[in-house]
Amino acid sequence: MEVEQSQRSKKDDDLNNGSVTTTTTDDEEVSVERVFEQSNEVPPPWQNQLTFRALIVSFILAILFTFVVMKLNLTTGIIPSLNISAGLLGFFFVKTWTKILNKAGVLKQPFTRQENTVIQTCVVASSGIAFSGGFGSYLFGMSDVIAKQSAEANSAMNIKNPHLGWMIGFLFVVSFLGLFSVVPLRKIMIVDFKLTYPSGTATATLINSFHTPQGAKLAKKQVRALGKFFSFSFLWGFFQWFFTSGEDCGFANFPTFGLKAYENKFYFDFSATYVGVGMICPYLINVSLLIGSILSWGVMWPLIGAQKGKWYSADLRDSNLHGLQGYRVFIGIAMILGDGLYNFIKVLGRTIFGLYKQFKNKDALPINDDRSSPDIVKISYDDKRRTELFLKDKIPSWFAITGYVVLAIVSIITVPHIFHQLKWYHILTMYIIAPVLAFCNAYGCGLTDWSLASTYGKLAIFTIGAWAGAANGGVLAGLAACGVMMNIVSTASDLMQDFKTGYMTLASPRSMFLSQAIGTAMGCVISPCVFWLFYKAFPELGQQESAYPAPYAAVYRNMSILGVEGFSALPKHCLVLCYIFFAAAVIVNGVRDAVGSKWARFIPLPMAMAIPFYIGGYFTIDMCVGSLILFIWRKLNKPKADAYSSAVASGLICGEGIWTLPSSVLALAGVKPPICMKFLSSSANKKVDSFLRH
Amino acid sequence: MEVEQSQRSKKDDDLNNGSVTTTTTDDEEVSVERVFEQSNEVPPPWQNQLTFRALIVSFILAILFTFVVMKLNLTTGIIPSLNISAGLLGFFFVKTWTKILNKAGVLKQPFTRQENTVIQTCVVASSGIAFSGGFGSYLFGMSDVIAKQSAEANSAMNIKNPHLGWMIGFLFVVSFLGLFSVVPLRKIMIVDFKLTYPSGTATATLINSFHTPQGAKLAKKQVRALGKFFSFSFLWGFFQWFFTSGEDCGFANFPTFGLKAYENKFYFDFSATYVGVGMICPYLINVSLLIGSILSWGVMWPLIGAQKGKWYSADLRDSNLHGLQGYRVFIGIAMILGDGLYNFIKVLGRTIFGLYKQFKNKDALPINDDRSSPDIVKISYDDKRRTELFLKDKIPSWFAITGYVVLAIVSIITVPHIFHQLKWYHILTMYIIAPVLAFCNAYGCGLTDWSLASTYGKLAIFTIGAWAGAANGGVLAGLAACGVMMNIVSTASDLMQDFKTGYMTLASPRSMFLSQAIGTAMGCVISPCVFWLFYKAFPELGQQESAYPAPYAAVYRNMSILGVEGFSALPKHCLVLCYIFFAAAVIVNGVRDAVGSKWARFIPLPMAMAIPFYIGGYFTIDMCVGSLILFIWRKLNKPKADAYSSAVASGLICGEGIWTLPSSVLALAGVKPPICMKFLSSSANKKVDSFLRH
Repeated sequence: MEVEQSQRSKKDDDLNNGSVTTTTTDDEEVSVERVFEQSNEVPPPWQNQLTFRALIVSFILAILFTFVVMKLNLTTGIIPSLNISAGLLGFFFVKTWTKILNKAGVLKQPFTRQENTVIQTCVVASSGIAFSGGFGSYLFGMSDVIAKQSAEANSAMNIKNPHLGWMIGFLFVVSFLGLFSVVPLRKIMIVDFKLTYPSGTATATLINSFHTPQGAKLAKKQVRALGKFFSFSFLWGFFQWFFTSGEDCGFANFPTFGLKAYENKFYFDFSATYVGVGMICPYLINVSLLIGSILSWGVMWPLIGAQKGKWYSADLRDSNLHGLQGYRVFIGIAMILGDGLYNFIKVLGRTIFGLYKQFKNKDALPINDDRSSPDIVKISYDDKRRTELFLKDKIPSWFAITGYVVLAIVSIITVPHIFHQLKWYHILTMYIIAPVLAFCNAYGCGLTDWSLASTYGKLAIFTIGAWAGAANGGVLAGLAACGVMMNIVSTASDLMQDFKTGYMTLASPRSMFLSQAIGTAMGCVISPCVFWLFYKAFPELGQQESAYPAPYAAVYRNMSILGVEGFSALPKHCLVLCYIFFAAAVIVNGVRDAVGSKWARFIPLPMAMAIPFYIGGYFTIDMCVGSLILFIWRKLNKPKADAYSSAVASGLICGEGIWTLPSSVLALAGVKPPICMKFLSSSANKKVDSFLRH
Repeated sequence: MEVEQSQRSKKDDDLNNGSVTTTTTDDEEVSVERVFEQSNEVPPPWQNQLTFRALIVSFILAILFTFVVMKLNLTTGIIPSLNISAGLLGFFFVKTWTKILNKAGVLKQPFTRQENTVIQTCVVASSGIAFSGGFGSYLFGMSDVIAKQSAEANSAMNIKNPHLGWMIGFLFVVSFLGLFSVVPLRKIMIVDFKLTYPSGTATATLINSFHTPQGAKLAKKQVRALGKFFSFSFLWGFFQWFFTSGEDCGFANFPTFGLKAYENKFYFDFSATYVGVGMICPYLINVSLLIGSILSWGVMWPLIGAQKGKWYSADLRDSNLHGLQGYRVFIGIAMILGDGLYNFIKVLGRTIFGLYKQFKNKDALPINDDRSSPDIVKISYDDKRRTELFLKDKIPSWFAITGYVVLAIVSIITVPHIFHQLKWYHILTMYIIAPVLAFCNAYGCGLTDWSLASTYGKLAIFTIGAWAGAANGGVLAGLAACGVMMNIVSTASDLMQDFKTGYMTLASPRSMFLSQAIGTAMGCVISPCVFWLFYKAFPELGQQESAYPAPYAAVYRNMSILGVEGFSALPKHCLVLCYIFFAAAVIVNGVRDAVGSKWARFIPLPMAMAIPFYIGGYFTIDMCVGSLILFIWRKLNKPKADAYSSAVASGLICGEGIWTLPSSVLALAGVKPPICMKFLSSSANKKVDSFLRH
């Protein structure tokens, strides 16, 4: 999941250097705000920025994106940024709405970029819960489906099956804390420190560009491209469905490179979603994934599998954690932890160094290693006007602090009722430390665009899990603690990005805050409901080898087990291999930083490499296909590719994502697909043919 | 097959109104020949037009196109025109060749449009044999594979299995007669009558345009498009192969619209070839095919099938000619004959009327109903120069007549040795009548671009078959007579088209004649060899429900049986239905002609409708997909679609066509595909899964 975070940054970054901003860099030179002023733009008062229509559109989009994020959570756990899509679709919906009303002559309020920002913020806040709610990680990791996969810690004490009631309750009491924790930091981060927040900046530039005349034209075309590929992807998902009667049936099990490769999880599974994800992710991520899957499923697992009977009992099935699966999961975890630790220390170091410099010389710019930000150096007209408006609508600090304390108290009282393994003092401790970590994360994210939310979550797993102890259901306590921590820290960085967007689009901090609060509330209801739909509709959810393996749920649970019980359960040589890969991850990251960005782009990312270790290479093929398409498209027509690729990719992702809604309804209604597209070896086919003839 | 002939015309006609000529119509206004003269073009002497390199290129392309035509022959029998591809690829090959030699400094002779024409002529003559040789119709209809499919006339007397020796011998003694029969008519048809020959004109315009500077640039781009789609189609064929281990496996059996539709032969079979064919054929043909397949497989066969036990014995399998299959085949034949007869009478009437006018007033233009041909009205500079050069290199009439007589004698002596059911007097009679029919066909084709070769062939089946009599192997005699007749008549119209091309590109008639002769000789060897490869590699050849049903082979044989034995063998009510559909075909054609071209384009062609009656609707889906692609492409970018669609379509057709070469080699070598992509119903899948688990 950290990868997902890194993608968000990388991707938006890309976009920032790409088409959308090429239009606006020109504008930037003549000052964006002057352009808007010349067209007589007066930002509406904050109450009017948060319109009823904006909330309706946000709600619709929130459901759409929650489906998408949930599906990604439960399939591979790689989630690309949907900020751009949210901004784009929000613009499209409200623009259509206002156009129709305008024609009917009943338009009361024109569509402003502030309103657009409010929608985007609300959608991001809402669909962010689908990720930070842990439906693909810690929360689902508590269930018995995941628990059964390992032999340890699967007593009732360490299991809590998902249920709509407690999930909504839990999210409500923990999700708003992050919101209140960032509000007081708002001015420091954005006005005083002038942090860049690349994702927020990119989204703001996009929204600004939409609301200039030529920007609106481009946006319209982008929306049309998105719509086209959305329909295609949706229909493709629908078409595929007909051929999936049975376990190994359908395009998702297409042995594109032969049956042998299929057994080793190497095939193109015709998933429009991951082709789209591949188009959004930078080449390096996709290549890293591919290298990781070749290294693991192509080399290591066959080699280790050959030691069956020696390194581990020959009686064990491959999916047993004491057998081959143990190597797969724990080596993957080791790499993720190695990469996470390296980046944690790196970002923390920079944060401290940056803060030191900041306080030493208040006007100096923050450390900004590989990014030259001209709008930070000069105090431009834009900055002046933006700051002015950003500081106009104040949210008093006492309000934020009171809110945080009240919510913390509510949370401390209620959460132990949900997870009785987690004691009130665990939660209190976390809530005392959390604001500091939230600040660190928001600051680090502003500098590097890299959110470390899940790393802080893992920290909570190990510390609180060990504190609670194995005897007292430490595994579950660890997972629950992870949830509490992640929700605060993740929200902090996400919402600060949004504040940056609001700053650049002259949206009022008050309307932003309210929109975030409403979005969070929506997310607390929508996400559990969508998850519940998946949970009920697909009984194979969480099972390995199924369409919804929810890989991170097992990873998180195993981390918790490891933290509480130690390394005794691992198969032979597994720990040594874990150390090696942990070290390798640290070293590779170190080398990447040492050689500089010129060479670093040829060195794979350990975090990305680790993901296919556990789930196999099939989705990396999809993503590389996406990369390939983008590469060829760029060769043929770079401006067009840059302008439309993210719209096309979003269409592909959202279309198949939303298809899961009718597909799960069909599954719930007990409608089975009529056909099985089966792949048999030549010899098996002969047998089946003679069997069917009788 | 008449459809294939009509397509050639329709298609080239289309092209003539399309992109390729839009470039040249402009040139036409400033006189094509003046443009060429200004660039100091002097047509080389005729010996130099027929170069060694031209022959090598012709040979390679002849093999390529023979594979393509043969595959089409044996799958559905629908063959689009490959003239354009031949011209295009001929240009590309020799141009590359001369460029390389030019760079090396050893180029002796530049590439001229005359040489291009010679190559095109040679390739058309050669691959024409793959059609007129009857490998998908009369010749293969003699084999026991086809004979076994009906209960009648399958004694040894009426069977002759294909063998390389006699096939080559037979083709050599009958194929050259057509060549000699047209030579004396050359001047009359082209210079005196000034017939249009739309296909020949289109090809000439194409070749002329290639040899002007901007034409060469377009040609290069077209070749690149062709190459791209050629590779795609070839690789797609290769990829599909891996999944075809077993009878119902692979993409060719993909139940795109469900299993029920698949049983009724309604599915998209992912054939790049027929998507390409669909792109070349006019919309009307494709829609007619679709209507025909819906009418037959969607409505009629299910209805007739419901009468099983009443109209025909319930013990019969659906593929028995006395059962459902009888209705399929004979109703189809009735429609084909009805359409054929209508057009025969129509074209014959026009021919006679045209000749009458021609002789009454030597300078008047021939009847030219719906075509305005400006270059015929005015005796332009182009016409003057072209006529001058066309008449310079004479081929004496005594040479042609001597050739015809000598070959006829050889043929009369040898053919009865090959088919002892066919007597010398049958052949003599045919050879006396043939030149008249050849003239009729060449003239009618010049007027309407519609070759009636296979209709004349059917005439021979019925007359000679009945003359020989059932007792003397009349079925085989009829089929053999069909071959003798078709070869002459088909060659006559094809080669006259080529002479028109030669006339318009200033190619010498002598080099044209020689190139045609060489091409025919090549074809007489290449075609049987390619057919032999198919015959040996695919043992299921000719079997219904297989990948190579060779539908017309059975149609021709059944026509022969019908001609010799009468209607006694047909199942109940079949004859009545045949009469109805025969009449319907005549009426629909009549209505089409009556309402004029404005409305005729909404009335389906009976000939096209009849084809899916027998083989099912799957290829019509492919072709409609091709139409759809072209339609959308034209909507998006008409000039580009017009310029490249025929190149793309040719690439799709040729790529998969040439893939049959390695695929048949693999089959001969006994290499089986490793995987079966199988489609099972939900219930069958459950059974298979439980079977495989044991």
